[in-house]
Amino acid sequence: MLDTQPVKRRRGRPPKHLQGFSETRQSLLDAGVEILTEKGFSAAGLDEILKRVNVPKGSFYHYFDSKGAFGLALIQHYDSFFEHKLNAFLQDSQLAPLDRIKGFVRDAIQGMAKYEYQRGCLVGNLGQEMGSLPEPYRASLLMVLQSWQQKFEVCLEEARAAAEIPIHSNSKQLAFIFWIGWEGAVLRAKLEQSPQPLQSFADYFFDSLRC
Amino acid sequence: MLDTQPVKRRRGRPPKHLQGFSETRQSLLDAGVEILTEKGFSAAGLDEILKRVNVPKGSFYHYFDSKGAFGLALIQHYDSFFEHKLNAFLQDSQLAPLDRIKGFVRDAIQGMAKYEYQRGCLVGNLGQEMGSLPEPYRASLLMVLQSWQQKFEVCLEEARAAAEIPIHSNSKQLAFIFWIGWEGAVLRAKLEQSPQPLQSFADYFFDSLRC
Repeated sequence: MLDTQPVKRRRGRPPKHLQGFSETRQSLLDAGVEILTEKGFSAAGLDEILKRVNVPKGSFYHYFDSKGAFGLALIQHYDSFFEHKLNAFLQDSQLAPLDRIKGFVRDAIQGMAKYEYQRGCLVGNLGQEMGSLPEPYRASLLMVLQSWQQKFEVCLEEARAAAEIPIHSNSKQLAFIFWIGWEGAVLRAKLEQSPQPLQSFADYFFDSLRC
Repeated sequence: MLDTQPVKRRRGRPPKHLQGFSETRQSLLDAGVEILTEKGFSAAGLDEILKRVNVPKGSFYHYFDSKGAFGLALIQHYDSFFEHKLNAFLQDSQLAPLDRIKGFVRDAIQGMAKYEYQRGCLVGNLGQEMGSLPEPYRASLLMVLQSWQQKFEVCLEEARAAAEIPIHSNSKQLAFIFWIGWEGAVLRAKLEQSPQPLQSFADYFFDSLRC
């Protein structure tokens, strides 16, 4: 649905009937993330997103310069939600480092169950569709994944310092592996409509940390 | 692109200008798999597939009853190609069981490089898009994955019997984990346009087999 063709932006302020510019913009981002985590980019129609938040089609360009800009804003929006969640779990110094990661895993499993395994990871969905997405998305998605990984690496380094995992463990590499497998597990959980793939991959990962 | 709405099939034989019914049908399946592994279902247009094999739009229903039936045929077509490949590697009794799996991994890495990391796994792509696909696809995709896993399980059982992996190893569970992580690695390789995620996940998996 989202291309990067330049679109001439309508000048001036939004029409009077558009109450609360930033609230509407926020609602568009929320609806966009919701729909994209279920269907992926290509299947998600801009019309469907606009309809969900009652924004007339003609008003879209008051909120975003182009469909491409909206797509990149959706990635940022999802990322900021997710970074906030990761920080809350991984920086909780009340818990031992590995328990923080386990807390994140539990929460993610509950999150997928809550939406009946219909919603996956926006970054995973878009990565899968790279063949039909323009290049700026690729760079953006990679930066997002690298940032999540980096948070895991820091937490795993703390686990290493606390002797929760062996001293020879490569935290950077383990964080990379976690995110490769976790995206695969989210995909499989959607397909099986079950928490089993998430739980099995997490158990396997935690077991492997002892070696 | 692919719905399951019933479409009234045109009766009678294909027009005379359609030479070689089964060859054209095969070409449609080949082109469909090519395009879908790059873009996913939703972004792939039927027009693009027809155009690639020079089939006029009006003739499509001579080859497939409906778009939905074409979608399911594409899954079967990809599966039969892939099962053939898996059998060739995993049943090669000239090699030790783990070397057969390593051979498959090497071949898959070369395959992704050959198409410059544009093409992923059809099953992974479709799984990611489950939110916009009709239910029969889900059952079909799961059966395909379970069949691939079962072939891995048999090979891992042989590795266990040959003492290549510890006697307490759970081959069924390990095959499940491999396919969870491998689909994640294919996705990440597309995003990074690099073999690294595939190689890293495979190395990690083989290392874990020793524990």
